Amino acid sequence: MRALVYDGQLRLVGDYPRPVPPPEEALVRLKLAGICNTDLEIVRGYMGFRGVLGHEFVGVVEECADGSLVGQRVVGEINCYCGECPTCRAGAPTHCANRTTLGIWGRDGAFADYLSLPVANLHTVPEAVSDEAAVFVEPLAAALEILEQVQVKPTDRVVVLGDGKLGLLVAQVLGLTGCDLVVGGRHEEKLAILQRRGIDARLADELPTEKADVVVDCTGHPSGFAAARGWVKPRGTLALKSTFHGNVEVNLSTLVVDEITLIGSRCGPFAPALRLLERGLVDVESLISATYPLDEGLAAFEQAQEKGTLKVLLEMG
Amino acid sequence: MRALVYDGQLRLVGDYPRPVPPPEEALVRLKLAGICNTDLEIVRGYMGFRGVLGHEFVGVVEECADGSLVGQRVVGEINCYCGECPTCRAGAPTHCANRTTLGIWGRDGAFADYLSLPVANLHTVPEAVSDEAAVFVEPLAAALEILEQVQVKPTDRVVVLGDGKLGLLVAQVLGLTGCDLVVGGRHEEKLAILQRRGIDARLADELPTEKADVVVDCTGHPSGFAAARGWVKPRGTLALKSTFHGNVEVNLSTLVVDEITLIGSRCGPFAPALRLLERGLVDVESLISATYPLDEGLAAFEQAQEKGTLKVLLEMG
Repeated sequence: MRALVYDGQLRLVGDYPRPVPPPEEALVRLKLAGICNTDLEIVRGYMGFRGVLGHEFVGVVEECADGSLVGQRVVGEINCYCGECPTCRAGAPTHCANRTTLGIWGRDGAFADYLSLPVANLHTVPEAVSDEAAVFVEPLAAALEILEQVQVKPTDRVVVLGDGKLGLLVAQVLGLTGCDLVVGGRHEEKLAILQRRGIDARLADELPTEKADVVVDCTGHPSGFAAARGWVKPRGTLALKSTFHGNVEVNLSTLVVDEITLIGSRCGPFAPALRLLERGLVDVESLISATYPLDEGLAAFEQAQEKGTLKVLLEMG
Repeated sequence: MRALVYDGQLRLVGDYPRPVPPPEEALVRLKLAGICNTDLEIVRGYMGFRGVLGHEFVGVVEECADGSLVGQRVVGEINCYCGECPTCRAGAPTHCANRTTLGIWGRDGAFADYLSLPVANLHTVPEAVSDEAAVFVEPLAAALEILEQVQVKPTDRVVVLGDGKLGLLVAQVLGLTGCDLVVGGRHEEKLAILQRRGIDARLADELPTEKADVVVDCTGHPSGFAAARGWVKPRGTLALKSTFHGNVEVNLSTLVVDEITLIGSRCGPFAPALRLLERGLVDVESLISATYPLDEGLAAFEQAQEKGTLKVLLEMG
């Protein structure tokens, strides 16, 4: 099969071996996949991953022990867990110490004709959700993870920093709580996507000065932390969604004095993401900058790395 | 009156002006006061404070608009708030932006014959609580603050790092929850205070390898953060009690991947601290290393700075 492989260099391979699913997994024929910032980071060396990239996808089940799934359109949770370690048994399988992660850690990903994933990871996609929307379930779930971790009250003042793909999803999800939300970004055309939905989205240097109960750093940059920290009220919460290589200098004593809560936030729940998309409560299609056939995967990566680009999709067709 | 003053240099002053309380404050004649690590940090330049040091005390009300308080033995919350700003109105007066803090910020402290504090800050001390115990109410309240912020479950595995004054109080308070607690420190004689109460307290390099749901850094050192971070399970909580000058390098991405919660923790509630002391559930008197008359305050500070010293008290007598 065709596959976009990273082995120290990104290359399109024509005869990559098609996965052979073990009994508890399903073979999924891919339809559409999205390029995420994490993919760009991997190509820069993050996680030391080698193999087929890609973890945002929609596809159709082609082989599966459960015959009723064959032919179904599915999306899939990316963390594959053992189910037996203390972390799994404590109900946190996305943190399983023995996990593999689709296209990120120990498991080939979705930029290919086929992938294999445990049946337990798959979610069928309702008819009302298009392929172009379904491919956003994984990052939308990551945005929803914040609400799994932090109680955002309708009366809370909330600041989201970053108008990249994840920032735009986080802002839309948090905006549904009725909270007093303002989003700070750097790109007027990206902020306009939120403004069209009635969300107060501004260039970062035009943000109002009032501090917030909850701040979310979606900047993806080390410098985002200090900016985000500056918006947090005493006893407020700063949710961290950015991953990047290297450390950041933090004044821990001011976190103590102001009793700030920092909380790291990664993968989230798929079912509510599908519900929001089915009800049309989140606009994801405005986030698509371009769609490339898999055969032009290298060009797709090039565009994805250009400043101002939002989501670039790969179509397996 | 006599007062131990820091004005760039620590000195004992014999004729410091006695405070004249405004109508909403009380004049307290001091009996006993404790030297805290924060006092030692201030003498090294922390907070830029100038004035009478000291914020842990027990004394007797000598003048007060409310006559029923006169003659009562009291302890006092150290943050004096405006009551009118949004932070105060939101129920977080210890974070009032207009606050003064006894002996730390904008208000003379307790290493003197008299202090003045708002009546609202005072708590009368039950007869069963000795002066030597009451002087620990302020740091014991700071230990309890962790339980105001974090739900420590009886089934949680908890690690406390640091066997200084605050660490010993935090360990005792968390141990009362029934959690699976282990304390790591550097001083066998300090750890023995906990061991005598049935708490598993060990030299830091003899801690079991199992990670914890809740970790508390009471080391007081920048290096404590990395050590404490290493004990936190995915989705676990790291409570920060250490304040010190300067920044620490933090790998924020691993906080995101492991979805760790960091929470800064400062001053806490006095009423439950008094209840625990009244019921004899916390041993504070074993923490007293020495008691000096106020006149020997400089010698007291010298001893407080010596390695291995726990609480040094000043007696106004």
